[in-house]
Amino acid sequence: MIPPPEELLRFLRTEDRFVVVAHMSPDGDTLGSSIALSLALRQMGKQVILLCRDRVPEHYEFLPERSLFATFETARSLPLDITTFRNLILVDCNELRRTGIEKSSLAGLAFDTVAIIDHHETERAFGDLRWIVPPVAATGMMVYAVIKALGLTLTEAMAVNLYAALIVDTGSFRYENTSAEVLSVAAALAEAGAQPHLINKAVNETWSEGRFALFTRMMSDLELIDGIAIMVVTRRLLAETGTLPDDTENFVSFPNVMRSVRMSVLLRELDDTTYKASLRSRGAVNVARIAESFGGGGHKNAAGCTIQGNLETVKAELLRRLEQAASRVA
Amino acid sequence: MIPPPEELLRFLRTEDRFVVVAHMSPDGDTLGSSIALSLALRQMGKQVILLCRDRVPEHYEFLPERSLFATFETARSLPLDITTFRNLILVDCNELRRTGIEKSSLAGLAFDTVAIIDHHETERAFGDLRWIVPPVAATGMMVYAVIKALGLTLTEAMAVNLYAALIVDTGSFRYENTSAEVLSVAAALAEAGAQPHLINKAVNETWSEGRFALFTRMMSDLELIDGIAIMVVTRRLLAETGTLPDDTENFVSFPNVMRSVRMSVLLRELDDTTYKASLRSRGAVNVARIAESFGGGGHKNAAGCTIQGNLETVKAELLRRLEQAASRVA
Repeated sequence: MIPPPEELLRFLRTEDRFVVVAHMSPDGDTLGSSIALSLALRQMGKQVILLCRDRVPEHYEFLPERSLFATFETARSLPLDITTFRNLILVDCNELRRTGIEKSSLAGLAFDTVAIIDHHETERAFGDLRWIVPPVAATGMMVYAVIKALGLTLTEAMAVNLYAALIVDTGSFRYENTSAEVLSVAAALAEAGAQPHLINKAVNETWSEGRFALFTRMMSDLELIDGIAIMVVTRRLLAETGTLPDDTENFVSFPNVMRSVRMSVLLRELDDTTYKASLRSRGAVNVARIAESFGGGGHKNAAGCTIQGNLETVKAELLRRLEQAASRVA
Repeated sequence: MIPPPEELLRFLRTEDRFVVVAHMSPDGDTLGSSIALSLALRQMGKQVILLCRDRVPEHYEFLPERSLFATFETARSLPLDITTFRNLILVDCNELRRTGIEKSSLAGLAFDTVAIIDHHETERAFGDLRWIVPPVAATGMMVYAVIKALGLTLTEAMAVNLYAALIVDTGSFRYENTSAEVLSVAAALAEAGAQPHLINKAVNETWSEGRFALFTRMMSDLELIDGIAIMVVTRRLLAETGTLPDDTENFVSFPNVMRSVRMSVLLRELDDTTYKASLRSRGAVNVARIAESFGGGGHKNAAGCTIQGNLETVKAELLRRLEQAASRVA
């Protein structure tokens, strides 16, 4: 693991008061990493205000010390006076925009130093102390390195938070980013008291019955054409199952269990003539190129775009471009 | 980790020729562990004959050096003369019955020493050198310990085989048996060249389209009653989807993704009046007790039995006993 930069460690050691902020629409990595970092700073005797624009989602309520989070609305009524804090740390994001703070009642706060701990690609050079390492699997790995570099005790509460961060961003150690180092840190976290099966259950086994119904109906109607799996979720299906668009999270990847699937598409109806397409490729086809051809974008293996038309024309045009791309790499 | 017994290590060091046998209907743990052990013995300059009653299943054909396996039929036509081998090692099983060797053309072979490396509960004390440690997550963990204790080089081929063994028996590090030690060995295997995402893909993403259809139809018809998920697979459904009973493997646990599910039941029709029931519990109910009340058995959280009756009566009676058990622990 790349060790944390000395300036970052010095900053954490010498300053006394920190505002730590997770990104909006928080996931397990930003939540677990920012809680663990806050606990580390408190262990050093620092004052910490931990912020997130949104409430901790229900299925992350098992995270120890999640109650440290204040929202932008409650931040001004804390015992600690946030206006006296001069240091801000962004966790698992590298632009203020991703925190939502700029458009909040806290927009006017001035900070002397902004530090960043993140593993996402960056577009703009924002921040004073930037530790951004995109190849790292999870920001949780970086916070673990900070805790070790500062010589702090890895508590059970930190371990559970960081373990959750790791499994969310590595798909429970199944994605390509699962390195020997990730597994080795996971082992250290389990040693410190994180219980793998309980954290997995808490993170992954939380579907509502409506979500299960949505899943089975989408999978039952799945079309498989030339190795391309196509799933459709209409507004009506969401209504009938009492679910929200977020409930389709990760469904687009499920057809990968089939050996014959090379690409997957999830089309979500936005209105009568607009569909949001999520594209996944497990092989050579670069779906970012396809998404871009519709005005969207993304990565080689995971991309998205919005397409105008009725379901039949949208499906046909998308299929045509995907098959064309597949024939080029075949 | 409990270190391998000295007698076992001495046996492996001093003897020259070994027959290593996996259990019949082989899974990833017995295959990966027995291949890795054979490679370790060969690295020491030993002669090894590796046996399994059954062919390596198609979805384990990615295992390096799987071609070391002979079946009982081909064992007599190897360059090595099996009748001159005096040492037998059972891997991931602890009775000859589980290997199928007794009922084969090799039944007459005589061995001076039978060693056992296994993590399953044992009913009878069979074998001369018995290393059986049920709490260990996978036999692959034990073979790893043997390789380390013998001071051998952990090769990439061994690492891939052992990593496959680990993920099969820990549900990709999600089951309760996923300890810090399991993750630490997994890290060492990845360090030695096992690529987690490729092995996961090879092990878990191999469904036929028929199996996917079977899955979606079973899940669409799932009944959820008082937190008990009931799935049914009829002979007709298997025929219509072109699948075999083995294709239902692990389906009984899938409803666990739902927060509200406490128990799951998969009923498989054997004939007009007989159903095979697989029972899973994620909570306090001991499903082994329920299975025993029908003449079956198993563990607290995973059990099975055969029940006579038509689908309606079987379902009703099973549900009655499960609900009764649930009300006792509630």
